[in-house]
Amino acid sequence: MNKKDIIIEKAVDLFYREGFARASIRKISSAAGISNAAIYHYFHNKDELLFEVVFSIGVELLSILNQIVHEVDDPRDALRQMLMKHICLMKEKRKEIKIFIEDQYQLPANLKSICQKQHREVYNIYYGVLKRFVQTGKLRADDLTVATFLIFGMVNWCYRWFREDRRLTIEEVAEKLIDYLFHGILIPYEEKP
Amino acid sequence: MNKKDIIIEKAVDLFYREGFARASIRKISSAAGISNAAIYHYFHNKDELLFEVVFSIGVELLSILNQIVHEVDDPRDALRQMLMKHICLMKEKRKEIKIFIEDQYQLPANLKSICQKQHREVYNIYYGVLKRFVQTGKLRADDLTVATFLIFGMVNWCYRWFREDRRLTIEEVAEKLIDYLFHGILIPYEEKP
Repeated sequence: MNKKDIIIEKAVDLFYREGFARASIRKISSAAGISNAAIYHYFHNKDELLFEVVFSIGVELLSILNQIVHEVDDPRDALRQMLMKHICLMKEKRKEIKIFIEDQYQLPANLKSICQKQHREVYNIYYGVLKRFVQTGKLRADDLTVATFLIFGMVNWCYRWFREDRRLTIEEVAEKLIDYLFHGILIPYEEKP
Repeated sequence: MNKKDIIIEKAVDLFYREGFARASIRKISSAAGISNAAIYHYFHNKDELLFEVVFSIGVELLSILNQIVHEVDDPRDALRQMLMKHICLMKEKRKEIKIFIEDQYQLPANLKSICQKQHREVYNIYYGVLKRFVQTGKLRADDLTVATFLIFGMVNWCYRWFREDRRLTIEEVAEKLIDYLFHGILIPYEEKP
């Protein structure tokens, strides 16, 4: 691993454990076993380091989602694959995802707006897939915005509660969440026989 | 409003806008128009102030949920009312809810464990209502844990995206979310005729 990657790895660790505001450049350089000056060779300040982390995970997520959207025609298959990959991204990038979701607002305005644009793109991809369902007549949800944010809540909450050493794997959790999202958690009162 | 309430109100404002780590006692006292010393009369430190905010909103939420659980027999009605009240709590307590969800982990261990107990209680109440459905045979979801965390994700994401000045009221959003959670966002491929 080169020096820049080591700095990023240690920054991710510290942002994840202590939150961005408390993780100082001093702590990061000490964890990376290098001098403060060496960090400033790569990043002008802590904000740029946070931006690097947040932006990279955004790029990775967008690339995963865009690939599926372009390759899979059937909207149900596309949505299923997107959710599976998105939720399972947590396996390798749990810390980065927490930082992506929780610390973005701490960026200075110019960098924040770049990341907000990324979030908007993720939103638009999911919204776009739901829109494909409207054409097939297979969407129950009558409001695409609310449905998209339900998806966001469902996916983005996973890193808060999922633990790898428990009863279910992340793939099993994703399967269940996708099923509940698609068809609900309850049986209707008046089921047709 | 007494002095303590003013301090809490200003602390909530600052924790909400700047995050707990950046909001200093100095800024809070300046916003409240009092001296630092006056704040220390009520709270030993910033942690205690955060705890007051987080604990109070937890108490309020638990009281709302417990009342419904005890008064409403039908699990579907109970769950619907719980979700409606929980989501709409954001109307008056949006800032507190954000702090409850995002800043709790910054508390020192002894205070954090009290708040984690509260979160666990909220979890147990929802889990308990889902369990009542199992007895009525009306639960589609085969895993109560995953279903409960789907509910948490759905509810807890609202403060991130909902804006009061848009197309839908919070009550309308809650109605739709409850419907999608109960019965899904998609129409099954093979609907019975």
